[in-house]
Amino acid sequence: MKNNEIPYKIYLSEDELPQNWYNLRADMKVKPAPLLNPGTGQPLSADELSAVFCRELVEQELDNDTPLVPIPKEIRDFYKMYRPSPLVRAYCLEQELDTPAHIYYKFEGNNTSGSHKLNSAIAQAYYAKKQGLKGVTTETGAGQWGTALSMACAYLKLDCQVYMVKVSYEQKPFRREVMRTYGAKVTPSPSNTTAVGRKILEEFPNTTGSLGCAISEAVEAAAAQPGYRYVLGSVLNQVLLHQSVIGLEAKAALDKVGVKPDIVIGCAGGGSNLGGLIAPFMGEKLRGEQDYRIIAVEPASCPSFTRGVFAYDFCDTGMICPLAKMYTLGSSFIPSANHAGGLRFHGMSPVLSQLYHDGYMEARAVEQTSVFRAAEQFARCEGILPAPESSHAIRAAIDEALACRETGEEKTILFGLTGTGYFDLVAYQKYNDGEMSDSIPTDEDLARSIAALPKIG
Amino acid sequence: MKNNEIPYKIYLSEDELPQNWYNLRADMKVKPAPLLNPGTGQPLSADELSAVFCRELVEQELDNDTPLVPIPKEIRDFYKMYRPSPLVRAYCLEQELDTPAHIYYKFEGNNTSGSHKLNSAIAQAYYAKKQGLKGVTTETGAGQWGTALSMACAYLKLDCQVYMVKVSYEQKPFRREVMRTYGAKVTPSPSNTTAVGRKILEEFPNTTGSLGCAISEAVEAAAAQPGYRYVLGSVLNQVLLHQSVIGLEAKAALDKVGVKPDIVIGCAGGGSNLGGLIAPFMGEKLRGEQDYRIIAVEPASCPSFTRGVFAYDFCDTGMICPLAKMYTLGSSFIPSANHAGGLRFHGMSPVLSQLYHDGYMEARAVEQTSVFRAAEQFARCEGILPAPESSHAIRAAIDEALACRETGEEKTILFGLTGTGYFDLVAYQKYNDGEMSDSIPTDEDLARSIAALPKIG
Repeated sequence: MKNNEIPYKIYLSEDELPQNWYNLRADMKVKPAPLLNPGTGQPLSADELSAVFCRELVEQELDNDTPLVPIPKEIRDFYKMYRPSPLVRAYCLEQELDTPAHIYYKFEGNNTSGSHKLNSAIAQAYYAKKQGLKGVTTETGAGQWGTALSMACAYLKLDCQVYMVKVSYEQKPFRREVMRTYGAKVTPSPSNTTAVGRKILEEFPNTTGSLGCAISEAVEAAAAQPGYRYVLGSVLNQVLLHQSVIGLEAKAALDKVGVKPDIVIGCAGGGSNLGGLIAPFMGEKLRGEQDYRIIAVEPASCPSFTRGVFAYDFCDTGMICPLAKMYTLGSSFIPSANHAGGLRFHGMSPVLSQLYHDGYMEARAVEQTSVFRAAEQFARCEGILPAPESSHAIRAAIDEALACRETGEEKTILFGLTGTGYFDLVAYQKYNDGEMSDSIPTDEDLARSIAALPKIG
Repeated sequence: MKNNEIPYKIYLSEDELPQNWYNLRADMKVKPAPLLNPGTGQPLSADELSAVFCRELVEQELDNDTPLVPIPKEIRDFYKMYRPSPLVRAYCLEQELDTPAHIYYKFEGNNTSGSHKLNSAIAQAYYAKKQGLKGVTTETGAGQWGTALSMACAYLKLDCQVYMVKVSYEQKPFRREVMRTYGAKVTPSPSNTTAVGRKILEEFPNTTGSLGCAISEAVEAAAAQPGYRYVLGSVLNQVLLHQSVIGLEAKAALDKVGVKPDIVIGCAGGGSNLGGLIAPFMGEKLRGEQDYRIIAVEPASCPSFTRGVFAYDFCDTGMICPLAKMYTLGSSFIPSANHAGGLRFHGMSPVLSQLYHDGYMEARAVEQTSVFRAAEQFARCEGILPAPESSHAIRAAIDEALACRETGEEKTILFGLTGTGYFDLVAYQKYNDGEMSDSIPTDEDLARSIAALPKIG
């Protein structure tokens, strides 16, 4: 198809939707390092993991070999309610930037959870239901993952218990109400419903909570109730597997119009979106079939790839979860106030960490104010108010397109627009009022949290 | 296509999108009554209207004869960024209700304005730009229309001034921030920027404003600034014309799979969504080609069709706007607190009023708590959190589908899902907390406001 004949939105019909997820690990020469038991320092066995996660999800977590994992029909039916997500040709942004580059974005925000998180939430809820479980527990910060899980559980009539960081529960009540509308039980964390919560409340009665504490409560709550398991929205191998549906759809749509991207860009927090978007492109690169520039964009306030180390670390600040080998700033690192709530994780998916370590992708850190400038520019011409997280990818895509204007190159850029900013208006207000600032950790901050890494591996 | 082979979402390709709007009035035997000058009691001329509205919009307002009005290419290009909107087969809702009915909905909420309002906002902004104007003024209550207009103006680089009812400006800051992100100037109304605002503030210094007052300020502000005109998001004939894109797309998609609806259902406030959704179906009915049951659903708290009178009345509570012949509760009627902000208008589109008067459609009023029950049920199985306004249509669609379960009839139901409820979480919270109640005006309330109607026509 000629470049200017490509429609604004390239949709796939239902029979063109992916039938399988793609497991990137199958094509990696160096596999991601296994999760370790923090007590023994040994790789976690399937049995150990099954105490926390559903059986089939444990299989997916440990499977480094099967390239294509069939998507069960029930999950495909759910996907049909909000997928395929649109692949959009950003004609208006191209014109606004006066660039010869061709810009595409895969928009995952057109569902009530507001982000790509639903892709893995329905999968994890489905396997829990299939195992005959009664319900699942999880934690949520600002609430994107908790909302997605609530929706999936409502659909499958599965009980859903969400530990929501107390400061968000109180100050950001809207996502909490969406979860409640979907029937989830939402508890502000720390709470007196768990031993770990009671202990923290005793020590710090006025604490407003943290994600690390909410994780600990959710894990304890799952273990304490027969028929419950814990689920998690990012970082894990299984999550990247489910999220591969993003990249598979994007690639199928581009193939349909005969387009190959030169550059693939995604924002990176724990890695769920980036890992999903790049999966099939990275697969071709790993197999030597095609080359792509792949760029991870992270906030300068929490720069795990660009300023972290590749080492074993805890996934939670409470240090009760398994150890993962990943790019990390140290589990004791606390990013300063930063509105891209979804990108505040101190570590990174082990799969993506290994790929970055092996030179298959680039990473760059961008500052918050420049991210919101990009968000505003994008919103005004493309008509979508982007999530702050997604706007990190927009920033990098705009910068690459502007570079093309300088060189005259007609590069094709694909980026992931992971979600909408409808629940991030407090941050937009700060930006509109000129009160937003950047916050970059000092070398001393990072040296301190990195020095505290566990001495393993 | 066989019934169970119909996809979850029926999309049109870009070359199947409507090239023309459909002007329902061309097929009406009895035309809607003209707008009257409140001073003279005579029909408003094009010249009089042009002082307030753009020239081409005045032509559209007065044109009762042309059935098809070409959609300018610039507007079609903008539509392509968020249209076609999905026509969804509600398989999950059907299963949940255990009904033999087939349910479809046309979903207009998948854009950042969150509703169908964008369809007319871009048209009105386009004609203003084409006329060489500098900007437009408008009023907004909760902010849906103001957001849509801000987006359209940002795209066309047109100045946008929004008078926002003060209570919403202060208590619902999020839509205000979306408008500001799109570059609009948002002023809490009443304000000291207009004579009418200053007068009201002098009399009632603590007022939190009203839509009627905001309209007056917006009209005055347009008249006071060279190169500005006033625009409005509902009620007017031109708005129904632009919104016909909803029904035209819905009908084209249904035709594609060989489906004819038996019942078409829409919520009705000022009539912009209902008039747009039903347009091509009503056209066939008016021309005697096909019969459809057409149902307008309004809140029991503001029941203009079901308990109002068909008479000339003011469109605003300030009584400075033209008189329109319509179903009305009287411009002095104030509905009690009701979260379906978009359905609180005391009157109704003159086109729809005439059609209802002539027996071409039904109307029913539904109570708020039952509307939110329907919203919750819909959200949990279809995965979309609906706007309270849209949920009125959901309520009626569910009731019709349940009636089919009783009779065993396989009726096909089409309803309009006008928007999402992401900015209505305060209302959802009230519902979740069991604190929502119904509020139905007494006969005495209505008799009083109806007795105050102007004595004309």
